[in-house]
Amino acid sequence: MSGLFGLANLPYGVCSVDGSAPRAVTRLGDHVVDLATLLDDDVFAGPSLNPFMAQGRARWDVVRTAIGEALAGGLPADGVHAIGDVRMHLPFEVADYVDFYASEHHASNLGRLFRPDSPDPLTPNWRHLPIGYTGRASSIVVSGTDVVRPCGQRLVDGVPELGPSLRLDLEAEVGFVVGAGSPMGTPIPAVEAAKHIFGVVLFNDWSARDVQAWEYVPLGPHLGKSFASTISPWVVPLAALDHARVEVPRQQPAPLPYLALDEPWGLDIDLEVELNGEVISRPPYRSMYWSPAQMLAHLTVGGAPTRTGDLFASGTVSGPELDQVGSLIERGKGFLEDGDEVVLRATAPGVDGSRIGFGEARGRIREARS
Amino acid sequence: MSGLFGLANLPYGVCSVDGSAPRAVTRLGDHVVDLATLLDDDVFAGPSLNPFMAQGRARWDVVRTAIGEALAGGLPADGVHAIGDVRMHLPFEVADYVDFYASEHHASNLGRLFRPDSPDPLTPNWRHLPIGYTGRASSIVVSGTDVVRPCGQRLVDGVPELGPSLRLDLEAEVGFVVGAGSPMGTPIPAVEAAKHIFGVVLFNDWSARDVQAWEYVPLGPHLGKSFASTISPWVVPLAALDHARVEVPRQQPAPLPYLALDEPWGLDIDLEVELNGEVISRPPYRSMYWSPAQMLAHLTVGGAPTRTGDLFASGTVSGPELDQVGSLIERGKGFLEDGDEVVLRATAPGVDGSRIGFGEARGRIREARS
Repeated sequence: MSGLFGLANLPYGVCSVDGSAPRAVTRLGDHVVDLATLLDDDVFAGPSLNPFMAQGRARWDVVRTAIGEALAGGLPADGVHAIGDVRMHLPFEVADYVDFYASEHHASNLGRLFRPDSPDPLTPNWRHLPIGYTGRASSIVVSGTDVVRPCGQRLVDGVPELGPSLRLDLEAEVGFVVGAGSPMGTPIPAVEAAKHIFGVVLFNDWSARDVQAWEYVPLGPHLGKSFASTISPWVVPLAALDHARVEVPRQQPAPLPYLALDEPWGLDIDLEVELNGEVISRPPYRSMYWSPAQMLAHLTVGGAPTRTGDLFASGTVSGPELDQVGSLIERGKGFLEDGDEVVLRATAPGVDGSRIGFGEARGRIREARS
Repeated sequence: MSGLFGLANLPYGVCSVDGSAPRAVTRLGDHVVDLATLLDDDVFAGPSLNPFMAQGRARWDVVRTAIGEALAGGLPADGVHAIGDVRMHLPFEVADYVDFYASEHHASNLGRLFRPDSPDPLTPNWRHLPIGYTGRASSIVVSGTDVVRPCGQRLVDGVPELGPSLRLDLEAEVGFVVGAGSPMGTPIPAVEAAKHIFGVVLFNDWSARDVQAWEYVPLGPHLGKSFASTISPWVVPLAALDHARVEVPRQQPAPLPYLALDEPWGLDIDLEVELNGEVISRPPYRSMYWSPAQMLAHLTVGGAPTRTGDLFASGTVSGPELDQVGSLIERGKGFLEDGDEVVLRATAPGVDGSRIGFGEARGRIREARS
């Protein structure tokens, strides 16, 4: 496991030790390293990565190099803790959160389930723009936080009742963290996305399918999604994924110019969905139709500003095969029970055939409040 | 005009004078009064109302009484400026923002326009729950901020193109500001909403109808709304609206118990939509089907937390008559042109037959970026 968090990775997180004030750290193998101590830089002394994230790409690159050099000889003497001795916190303050719908396989599968009478499972707009909707920022929690089964209105024999969701699902996603924001009225072209995207997390967009099905026409999901979303505690720097860059699948029709890419923006991330200790699916991120650069370009083309801490997620990652789907509804074998524990994991190619790891996005379902 | 901002109102805002650091103020007639000075309380010395809003209902009530007593004899000697000499700022930091769809008249009008083939203009869920969706917090701006015509994908002869919206609309709404938040997993019953709602603003939810129509199926509006929303600079305390409380229209079927009300939660607010100096509509807020207490109860029933600075808006306020609609699309006489200026205003009953006023929500349309 240490190999997944070697010098080619160096993710960013925030942790506390025995109730101490949370501080920014990186991870090397099975240890965390305090960054304010390592680099003598107070930007890392606070409880979130936002101040560092706001400094922008040039500074991120300098700091990443400095961390790599400082740790090249091994762990330092000070500011080091075993990963098992620390508590990880939400690594950044989430500003606005947008969830996309970028997997053609997932969107097709869901279209067949939610709109069975429609001749095409994809809506007419799907291949023209990365569909997304804004979600609730305040219910994003860090890995390890229990998820209480949500209540909501759902149909029972055709009549809406309030009660615990009976179709509670997971959604395996990848989230992209905006470090350097952009002012209102200034779109971010797809070709400049890397200047703004600080890093990548795993994201479980827990979904109450019965609540969602009843509420979502015409204005989209709300309570079906707003009760909780889980992110991994480690933000993997975009720079650590250089070796994971692949071409996106062929996009037909060709995207409009503002969505055009000048470099490979697909990401060869292998996800893994574990349910109660058993791996039930291995969604391949490289199968995603819309890339994060295109999502960010679309999100801002109307003039919306972005802020440090904005998070946009890919939507459920589903490959073409049944053992590659990123949600239970697509798998067709039932939904989450109380006590179930879901863990998302992922790896991606590093240097020289090695792999880099992501943190886990773990959550256990607790029974609904009575 | 002074009468609208008398002792029965005492709204909260944030302003600066000649480039000074923004501070919290109240308004009496045509003057603003610095609250940190008036009350000798540093909670008002910062650039947003959030610290005060977080203190909760009991403190809000004490402070409102104290302000009223301090100003009963007229304007104080220090910390007073003429309204024309100050610049108003966004009065609070917006946390999560949710927009509802609470007017039966508006939802019916839009349903007929967007889904002409549907036998019922209201979707089957509409009378069972206050439909809402999460919107972008970072593009909420204060009155007086120009609105650049957004670009986005919209259909031209059936083909999606990127370009300036050709169907730019306004939406006259009322926004409700959450002062005291609530933890994840703890719903706010409708009967406790007043403990959490700090105050009320006017809200223009600018909408690009052509962008919205192309993008919104299946996950709801995104770029059609995310480019800008304008709020009035004055937060009218909920307590100032005691005399505006009226029964909501009859709700049939009876709402589920979590949406039941034990006091009148309709608000007799008269809105006014001015376009280029001419009042084109007078939407009556008392005609709104779903009340703010029900919106907040619904928003949280699934377990979503709320935070100080959360904003939820009513959705377009439209009455039953054509001169009471809160959007141009319902009026049917065209959309906004570059240079058009929209001003939302409102008044509500105060004590003894007087009226209290809201601040303006003003915005002028600037041409799209080239």
